[in-house]
Amino acid sequence: MTISKISPLAPKNSPKMPLLAGLEMATAASEIKYKNRDDLLLMVFCSETTVAGVFTKSATAAVSVLLTKKVIKSNDARCLLVNAGNANAFTGKKGERSALSILSSLSKISGLPLSSMMMASTGVIGEPLNEDLIKFHLKKLWDSKGEADWYQAASAIKTTDTFTKVTSQIINIDGENVHICGIAKGSGMIAPDMATMLGFIVTDAKIEKTLLQKMLSETNNKSFNSITVDNETSTNDMVIMAATGASKVNILSQGPNTDKFILALQKVMTCLAHQIVKDGEGASKFITINVMGAVSNTSAHKIAKSIANSPLVKTAIAGEDANWGRIIMAIGKAGEPIIKDLLTIRIGGVLIAEDGKKSEGFVESMLDKHIKSKNIIIDVDLQIKNGNATVWTCDFTHDYISINADYRS
Amino acid sequence: MTISKISPLAPKNSPKMPLLAGLEMATAASEIKYKNRDDLLLMVFCSETTVAGVFTKSATAAVSVLLTKKVIKSNDARCLLVNAGNANAFTGKKGERSALSILSSLSKISGLPLSSMMMASTGVIGEPLNEDLIKFHLKKLWDSKGEADWYQAASAIKTTDTFTKVTSQIINIDGENVHICGIAKGSGMIAPDMATMLGFIVTDAKIEKTLLQKMLSETNNKSFNSITVDNETSTNDMVIMAATGASKVNILSQGPNTDKFILALQKVMTCLAHQIVKDGEGASKFITINVMGAVSNTSAHKIAKSIANSPLVKTAIAGEDANWGRIIMAIGKAGEPIIKDLLTIRIGGVLIAEDGKKSEGFVESMLDKHIKSKNIIIDVDLQIKNGNATVWTCDFTHDYISINADYRS
Repeated sequence: MTISKISPLAPKNSPKMPLLAGLEMATAASEIKYKNRDDLLLMVFCSETTVAGVFTKSATAAVSVLLTKKVIKSNDARCLLVNAGNANAFTGKKGERSALSILSSLSKISGLPLSSMMMASTGVIGEPLNEDLIKFHLKKLWDSKGEADWYQAASAIKTTDTFTKVTSQIINIDGENVHICGIAKGSGMIAPDMATMLGFIVTDAKIEKTLLQKMLSETNNKSFNSITVDNETSTNDMVIMAATGASKVNILSQGPNTDKFILALQKVMTCLAHQIVKDGEGASKFITINVMGAVSNTSAHKIAKSIANSPLVKTAIAGEDANWGRIIMAIGKAGEPIIKDLLTIRIGGVLIAEDGKKSEGFVESMLDKHIKSKNIIIDVDLQIKNGNATVWTCDFTHDYISINADYRS
Repeated sequence: MTISKISPLAPKNSPKMPLLAGLEMATAASEIKYKNRDDLLLMVFCSETTVAGVFTKSATAAVSVLLTKKVIKSNDARCLLVNAGNANAFTGKKGERSALSILSSLSKISGLPLSSMMMASTGVIGEPLNEDLIKFHLKKLWDSKGEADWYQAASAIKTTDTFTKVTSQIINIDGENVHICGIAKGSGMIAPDMATMLGFIVTDAKIEKTLLQKMLSETNNKSFNSITVDNETSTNDMVIMAATGASKVNILSQGPNTDKFILALQKVMTCLAHQIVKDGEGASKFITINVMGAVSNTSAHKIAKSIANSPLVKTAIAGEDANWGRIIMAIGKAGEPIIKDLLTIRIGGVLIAEDGKKSEGFVESMLDKHIKSKNIIIDVDLQIKNGNATVWTCDFTHDYISINADYRS
């Protein structure tokens, strides 16, 4: 693995990440794969906490996904243990026993029931997990809970990530501050159908569990479910959201406070999703694809994904070539209703295609500046109905090949 | 475009390509894009010829696709004009008029009705076609018909292809020789849902049109519809098959002679499809993916395509890394029924995964020789029912990025 430089699209600022009442975190270095860095994260939630989750749809989902789903269903969730470097996926009965054995140890150390222990794993698929290396650190993790900040937490869950992904929002509700903090990891194998990568969101608001799940699922659709790097879906993807309730601010199912909260949550989710794209393996450009005027939002989403997943579109943008014929190709192959003579295509706001052909006034030099920038915007207006969707992706470069042909992540 | 070396997977032999009674061919250089090479092909069929076709499913299909479909429906097909270098796709009313104007000229020169003129175009999308450059050569093409051989024909239809794609079969039916000859072009934008690239097959057998269409569609499913380079679908894909009947051998809807003919046709179709994969942009390895034991053939096909289209699988193979965890990932994301603990994975015949985990006896050194070879074989047995499918693809290398990021094809 020779490519370890930070993505050129990494955010320049380091947001303030407030510690939240009702949440304690700790990190440690198990060295199951990586050396000289933390690779374990423990999150401990206060007893009032409600937890929701969205998970990979993979038919070969890892044991951590199956276990954590069950815990969230049971309403008992209190701890989340994350390990980086080994996905513990497709590791058979032994892998299941390893995960259970680790969580049983943590249960004994913490005095909390096994049924309250969630787990998330990320890393190589099919390699047996060295459970002893993890178990060795559980006591220390538990004893040091509350000592890790969000940056340490976000660092401990990285695999091929070139930067740590954090974001936060503070909103004032009836004179009280409510916080939403989130961290995520992921750069390759990114094309969620239902959450991807790992993402952990915590708020100190008090939110009833069914509502929390609804909010998470809905904001997830417009964030983690609207990004793609390489159209891959991992065995281990999950986004977990916890509401500790420690702020004493109650978010109800509707009202202006709820709208305010959902807006802030969407910002957290979308910001993390964008960071994952910006850390897409080999990414040199961040691409926003807006499709409007489709027969439905779902149809718009499919067309946007078809463009976003097209290797020919992504390589053209990497080469700073405004090859819009490849966008036409990608729209055509989506299998969705379009009317060829109605649709328009704009890149960087410049009208390129209309009336079923290249726009009269368009010359390629009009795109010179935009196509060389780091943020590429493609707008497709189908002009049929009102369906719309936005999908974010990155370009497809030599570094993607280098990272994935030369390195086993 | 700096990469013009011949694909390392190009066939070493040059098959004999017999000229067929009832078919006359000519080529010419219009220079609409390429210099110093032929880029026009005319095929003229005798009046008894029956013609069938399979076409792209793209919603942005080019005018040549729409016109040729209509001609085949009308039973009049007598001429096929092919141009390389400009797809005449998404070129509006003007593009439609250009195609019609070219075919009208050819109709006048040949004395054959406009309704008998098929056209196929391949090349850049969205650029206006310079119809005059093509019309200028029509008289010469018509007058020299019969002068081009199959190799000249196959060369004239190339775009980014690094070698010409030809194949043939001779079968003896009731003491008479029957021939099937085929040519094809295509290397990028390859992932047919219903034919891709351009392919032209001619036989001197006599075959009723409905039967010819059935034979083409069925052999197409197991050849051009079972390959993928980059999961792209072009606006201009078509495979046309013509039966001149000049051999006087009649192929009927069933019987041993029909079986013999279909077998030979399948060989021609599959050989051309393989050549397209072997000329996949940047390809260094030819990959065969066999999926068996699925709930249906369709399900097996979807799983095989999911593996074949996975950039992570394809880059791992480019890097000669037997990273079978990525195969697990690709199986999982296909959205098809599997039972994790039942499936087995073999690479190069070596059992790698079973019982929901890495196989006990497997060590990676067992794959060292196979993974370094040019022909990679992946077998997945789901062990549920009897559905099976084979899909062919190539690996994903730096050269794919170079070809597509630096060059407008």
